[in-house]
Amino acid sequence: MYNFTFQNPTKLVFGKGEIAQLSTLIPTEKKVMITFGGGSVKHNGVYEQVIAALKNHNYIEFWGIEPNPEVETVRKAVALGKENEIDFLLAVGGGSVLDGTKLIASALANPGIDPWDIVLQRRIETAISYASVMTLPATGSEMNCGSVISCREKKEKYAFSTTFPEFSILDPEVTYSLPANQIACGLADIFVHVAEQYMTTAGQSRIMDRWAEGVLQTVIEIAPKIKENQNDYDVMADYMLSATLALNSMISMGVTQDWATHMIGHELTALHGLTHGASLAIVYPGTLITLKEQKQSKILQYGERVLGITSGTESERINETISKTEAFFRSLGLATRLTEVGIGDETINLIAERFNKIGVAYGEGRNVTGDVAKQILLNCK
Amino acid sequence: MYNFTFQNPTKLVFGKGEIAQLSTLIPTEKKVMITFGGGSVKHNGVYEQVIAALKNHNYIEFWGIEPNPEVETVRKAVALGKENEIDFLLAVGGGSVLDGTKLIASALANPGIDPWDIVLQRRIETAISYASVMTLPATGSEMNCGSVISCREKKEKYAFSTTFPEFSILDPEVTYSLPANQIACGLADIFVHVAEQYMTTAGQSRIMDRWAEGVLQTVIEIAPKIKENQNDYDVMADYMLSATLALNSMISMGVTQDWATHMIGHELTALHGLTHGASLAIVYPGTLITLKEQKQSKILQYGERVLGITSGTESERINETISKTEAFFRSLGLATRLTEVGIGDETINLIAERFNKIGVAYGEGRNVTGDVAKQILLNCK
Repeated sequence: MYNFTFQNPTKLVFGKGEIAQLSTLIPTEKKVMITFGGGSVKHNGVYEQVIAALKNHNYIEFWGIEPNPEVETVRKAVALGKENEIDFLLAVGGGSVLDGTKLIASALANPGIDPWDIVLQRRIETAISYASVMTLPATGSEMNCGSVISCREKKEKYAFSTTFPEFSILDPEVTYSLPANQIACGLADIFVHVAEQYMTTAGQSRIMDRWAEGVLQTVIEIAPKIKENQNDYDVMADYMLSATLALNSMISMGVTQDWATHMIGHELTALHGLTHGASLAIVYPGTLITLKEQKQSKILQYGERVLGITSGTESERINETISKTEAFFRSLGLATRLTEVGIGDETINLIAERFNKIGVAYGEGRNVTGDVAKQILLNCK
Repeated sequence: MYNFTFQNPTKLVFGKGEIAQLSTLIPTEKKVMITFGGGSVKHNGVYEQVIAALKNHNYIEFWGIEPNPEVETVRKAVALGKENEIDFLLAVGGGSVLDGTKLIASALANPGIDPWDIVLQRRIETAISYASVMTLPATGSEMNCGSVISCREKKEKYAFSTTFPEFSILDPEVTYSLPANQIACGLADIFVHVAEQYMTTAGQSRIMDRWAEGVLQTVIEIAPKIKENQNDYDVMADYMLSATLALNSMISMGVTQDWATHMIGHELTALHGLTHGASLAIVYPGTLITLKEQKQSKILQYGERVLGITSGTESERINETISKTEAFFRSLGLATRLTEVGIGDETINLIAERFNKIGVAYGEGRNVTGDVAKQILLNCK
């Protein structure tokens, strides 16, 4: 186990009816800007609950943070926030609204820096207070300090980190009305978040391995149940909590991480607008195929403990494990091949070039160069 | 899943050599009192590391917080703290030193209340800043707000809660020199902490079940390895981290808890001075035998997932699961029967009377009255 520091101060307020707690969680002396996405919260009762809870607060609304939030939109929100001397942000929506809000909060605390420069410097220490009502379990953004922002103009997408949300309210009932495809992408996102922290060198921490496997087992167990009945509170609660626990540092204590799949997935989103989870479902099996020797021990462990694969030669078990992982993504209703979404060699070559141009290599072993990324994408065709 | 709020602000600083971080983790303007136990830290290098790290700090030392820390000792420390206008406490030792320090910190922030009255009111909102260098993995006290204090005079032992440690430093190397019996008691303590949060009504949360099972699996896997080689860094790191994760609320989100075994165990400690972990190893199998119908579904799940018990009738599997649990405690070298430690009917009757007198019933189902506690203890003979 490597040395590590863990600290996550976010207060998680979880369960049905908890949105009403906003009335006391945000001090009434705050000048609040509520940030929203495209308007789905007006159709599922969330907007009404938020507004009812904040009836004694001083707030304004900012609408229109898009999926894969864009710095261009953030700049508009920052201008509105400055104009109104906002000192508290409440993100109401999914991971994109929250990620955009993290950049708004950071920019409002650092007025001399353009938001895209904040993203490019990758880490900023200060942000104004912000919190969330999370409506789409997927990114884990509700309990971490990370954010991923796109620049439409440059067709680039990068992650940066800032402060943690003060609190996040998670009511599983708000997931009842989510479109099936958003849930599928959310489940793929959760799965690959865990994989990025788990499918690395074996034997680093028994307890972290068990917790990562526990999230994977849960996601695999609940996926068909969600398809069956999206209004089953306990199933949706496990779905919502799994998303949070998959990316709040509780499964990454003292172990190495990978994130090559995410870096490649971000490129597909930046270039083709693919939903984040959809991009991961395509790239991840290709990553496993390409790096199966490097990740051999962990793939075998995952195959045995999570998927119950115990017979055959090591090579057969590895191949079966990778096939079953792809089959899981397909069972969600997601495409797992680039050809299915109309992406071909031109994009593959462009991503390889971009990686080579940046000159960094991704992944646990820092060996996913442009050429390796190309091989991964060729294995996703 | 029940509604819940989770927040744990403690910073965990984990790994070899991390005690040196004290120099920057505690602001130099603080007036620090370092609290210690009986002196083992002078023989394992911890004392020297702490003093070296604090060479630019203003500090005094308080020695002598005993196992099962007593309010009588706490009162002395509080007097010394007041006299020296202490505004930061650093506990260096095991769970007892830390638990005692939690009461000292609470009493220093609430000078009008006697420490035992703080314990009796069960919850206090304020304490002066405190932190820890944890040397004995067991209680999880390093990352929670709970504390258990004894009153020697009254032969009573109760839990109360206060603020969280600001940080806790955990260096697995400090465990190399721990006496085997302390490690055995520590492992039993971790195991039963998890069981108190897990062996309850089945089906409350898939993800919490998996995480609780993950800690149990880890403890069972590492116990013989620790016996083999107490200087294996990675094994001791998993042991140390498991202790923390077993009782920092990460496995109890949205699920019911039990704690009847602990309440009975506290009585054995209060009356006979039994080490906390040793008391649990005796009481827990008796709890399972007595409540096996109530806990049937969860015992079956635990037997299958953690112990690999899958054949036989339900009744046979439950009995085998309970036997194997007792065998695990015995494998640690601990007694699992009251007769082995010379405790008989007199104590059993006294505990039953005390429970009946207090008039509360413990356990998940609030059905562990004095009479049920007596039955549990009779099943521990």
